[in-house]
Amino acid sequence: MTKHWDAFETRMHELKDVAGVIGLLGWDEETYTAPKGRAARGQQTGTLEAIQHRWLVDPALGEWIESLLASDLDPVRRRMVERVERQRRLAARVPESLVKRTAEARSLAMVAWQKAKTDDDYATFAPHLETIVELSRERASALGSPSGDPYDALLDEFEPGMTAARLEPVFRELVDGLVPLVDELTARERPDTSFLARGFPDAGQWAFTMRLLKDLGFDLDRGRQDRSVHPFTATMSEDDVRLTTRIEEGAPFVAIFSTIHECGHGLYEQGFDPEHRRTSLARAPSMGLHESQSRLWENQIGRTLPFWRHYFPILRETFPGKLDDVSLDAFHRAVNLVERSFVRTDADEVTYNLHIVLRFELERALLSGDLAPKDLPGAWNETMTKYLGVTPPDHRRGCLQDIHWALGAIGYFPTYAIGNLYAAQLFAAYEAAYPQIWSDVEAGHFAPLLSWLRANVHRIGDREDAEAIVEAATGAGLRVQPLLDALRAKYLG
Amino acid sequence: MTKHWDAFETRMHELKDVAGVIGLLGWDEETYTAPKGRAARGQQTGTLEAIQHRWLVDPALGEWIESLLASDLDPVRRRMVERVERQRRLAARVPESLVKRTAEARSLAMVAWQKAKTDDDYATFAPHLETIVELSRERASALGSPSGDPYDALLDEFEPGMTAARLEPVFRELVDGLVPLVDELTARERPDTSFLARGFPDAGQWAFTMRLLKDLGFDLDRGRQDRSVHPFTATMSEDDVRLTTRIEEGAPFVAIFSTIHECGHGLYEQGFDPEHRRTSLARAPSMGLHESQSRLWENQIGRTLPFWRHYFPILRETFPGKLDDVSLDAFHRAVNLVERSFVRTDADEVTYNLHIVLRFELERALLSGDLAPKDLPGAWNETMTKYLGVTPPDHRRGCLQDIHWALGAIGYFPTYAIGNLYAAQLFAAYEAAYPQIWSDVEAGHFAPLLSWLRANVHRIGDREDAEAIVEAATGAGLRVQPLLDALRAKYLG
Repeated sequence: MTKHWDAFETRMHELKDVAGVIGLLGWDEETYTAPKGRAARGQQTGTLEAIQHRWLVDPALGEWIESLLASDLDPVRRRMVERVERQRRLAARVPESLVKRTAEARSLAMVAWQKAKTDDDYATFAPHLETIVELSRERASALGSPSGDPYDALLDEFEPGMTAARLEPVFRELVDGLVPLVDELTARERPDTSFLARGFPDAGQWAFTMRLLKDLGFDLDRGRQDRSVHPFTATMSEDDVRLTTRIEEGAPFVAIFSTIHECGHGLYEQGFDPEHRRTSLARAPSMGLHESQSRLWENQIGRTLPFWRHYFPILRETFPGKLDDVSLDAFHRAVNLVERSFVRTDADEVTYNLHIVLRFELERALLSGDLAPKDLPGAWNETMTKYLGVTPPDHRRGCLQDIHWALGAIGYFPTYAIGNLYAAQLFAAYEAAYPQIWSDVEAGHFAPLLSWLRANVHRIGDREDAEAIVEAATGAGLRVQPLLDALRAKYLG
Repeated sequence: MTKHWDAFETRMHELKDVAGVIGLLGWDEETYTAPKGRAARGQQTGTLEAIQHRWLVDPALGEWIESLLASDLDPVRRRMVERVERQRRLAARVPESLVKRTAEARSLAMVAWQKAKTDDDYATFAPHLETIVELSRERASALGSPSGDPYDALLDEFEPGMTAARLEPVFRELVDGLVPLVDELTARERPDTSFLARGFPDAGQWAFTMRLLKDLGFDLDRGRQDRSVHPFTATMSEDDVRLTTRIEEGAPFVAIFSTIHECGHGLYEQGFDPEHRRTSLARAPSMGLHESQSRLWENQIGRTLPFWRHYFPILRETFPGKLDDVSLDAFHRAVNLVERSFVRTDADEVTYNLHIVLRFELERALLSGDLAPKDLPGAWNETMTKYLGVTPPDHRRGCLQDIHWALGAIGYFPTYAIGNLYAAQLFAAYEAAYPQIWSDVEAGHFAPLLSWLRANVHRIGDREDAEAIVEAATGAGLRVQPLLDALRAKYLG
């Protein structure tokens, strides 16, 4: 048994190493890769992914896993084996030819999507979406779905164990709660945000975001921040977690809230139990739980008045003359502008989840065949009008806005909303247990919150399922009420 | 046969991809890796090197190679197979246990060397050097040496086909030519270089080196420049070649000549035949030939009067007020200061090769056992005094100055001198064929030289041996006279 464990452990370490290297390849591609170096980079990433795949489907690994699971293993090691077994199962079920065809379809679809978006010409993208949907059906069928709903097979890859049947009532409750709230908030006078366009120099924005990272507890000896077009977090290893931000001189909220958001992801990645280092447990159990960490810091902390009581004077000092005539209250209202917008990534915390419910409904209809890809624009605009009360003036700000479907990532969108819900649940639990939170935040003192998250979420890694972690921390699994309560308290209270 | 070729080619591509990824891991470690991320990075690099090793010693690869070499293969494909066969042979000969013990000894030796250097305490390093020498003997014996001289087995890994017996008379001729030249030049009045300490702001140095890169022909769409403590060149792929430089405000020559030097390496890496992309031929056939490209641009171009006739006015403009009272002639003399110095990396082009001959003699004596590691300091200082006429005041500037032996790289040093010799030979051939070179250089027009190097060196890659390339381009193999002639013409003429 020890021999099998040793062999298994070595392979698990190697798998983790290669995953970190793939993380580096992706990070580098968005930050420092030479413009013409992307084709070769794609081949390199493909080669490392092929190594991962070969290792995962290797019969020897199957034997080690089988014999270890049949043996008397301590719970932590058992979970390590189970997590690798899950990866192996998923990898083994999808035939290599399908992986290849998907990779090819995806790269064609991405080019077509870029062009379609630029030209605002949906017809260019439609046939590619059709292929992606067909391949997604094949993938779902290869993966298998215990519920019988093919969508669940795809969703499970991002949010293990979650099903569409469970999400439907959750999202219905969300819509029922949010739509009237949006009606009420958008009927109010729009706060003045014109001061944001005044031009906030790059160097000041950079310095301010670096200060935020330090203050929030991101360890810059075990990570870094760079710039990229689309902000993201990538993990090289537990000791080298990299965030990116985007600085726009005429829109300082982009950098500020991207940094806080990615910092939330980064704190999670830096917070796994050191004993899980280089194992299958040093990762989040689901994308939704990961997103909860970014959203919690971005919204529950970064968009509050106590937070800006601390940081607004610092921001003012960072940009002399730019904010002298703006009151803290006016600034805070600008931070929390709620409006009916077309584009998900620009959406505020109130309307955001409505964008997700729309995508969930449409991608399910695409997958089931109820919606033909050619009919997407009509369905998009109709659903948008129903939930958000606005109709996109073009496809660019409508059904062509997101890259996800071109990437073949059907089943991913719900994890954003799950993240928002988990964030509200976790934060409500923390706030109930530690009412002094707001004097902490006002003093720029975030260590108590971080250590609570470390203990209740981060350290656990993939040793428990996402919902079990949330339940242990808050007393309940996925719930809608805490988010609705928090939004009502904040915006109406 | 086609089937074997296809299988071989796929593996060759994968080997090339992994080599590029290892290049990225190393580059990233010296540029952007988080301070505490180095341990995990070491493991990742180790894992990828293990993959390379497994692929190389894989019996299936051996079968494909054998059957392909026995078949009717076109010369280019044959050479591709032969180059991989060489890699396979070298990898297969060194037992894994020796690789492991060497890696361990090396990381201990590097730590000890750092400490010994900081404390100027040779005794700390001596036992590690002893281990390194013993392991190098084992390695040499595992690799095998057709000549019977173990040193040749090590040298061959860096400079295929080269032997100590061939280098001995070459180095003797070098010493005999250089020692009297150094005597003569150092008897002259030392040029005034005090203006270099005036403080040259970082931004100006960066802009100037970026301009140099562009002017010399480095393609910034297929590469980039960053900063690191020790400048180097790393290749991610033929379309992503990365240089680093180091900027010291009080020593502007560091950045200028590092950039020109690394640019020479980078132009080579960007210049391989596109048809060799992702194959075993897209690389230099030897380290000496690689070094010839960096040295040619650094010394034969970058230290000449015509070059500075073009760039000195630009440098003056870049640093307003800093060089107004310095004449072009004074500047050019500062660029070409010749002096007896202790440290190889600070040495000028005249004394540099004497530092190499010293190391060649001492590392041969260490390997043969004629010199015990504990006796290195004495032998170092004695040889230094003999060749360079100075005795290091401490070990830091003596036998502890270089990292190479701590890295286990015995047999590497001669490639620096070979590079200098090849550079002089290649440049003499070019100058003879294109006497208008100096009006080109004075006009900042380097394209003709670059295209000659592309055609005669770069494009060939590893399709020919290094010396065969030099012979085809210049009419002769490794020779000393062209370097001595060029130095005499420049400094005495």
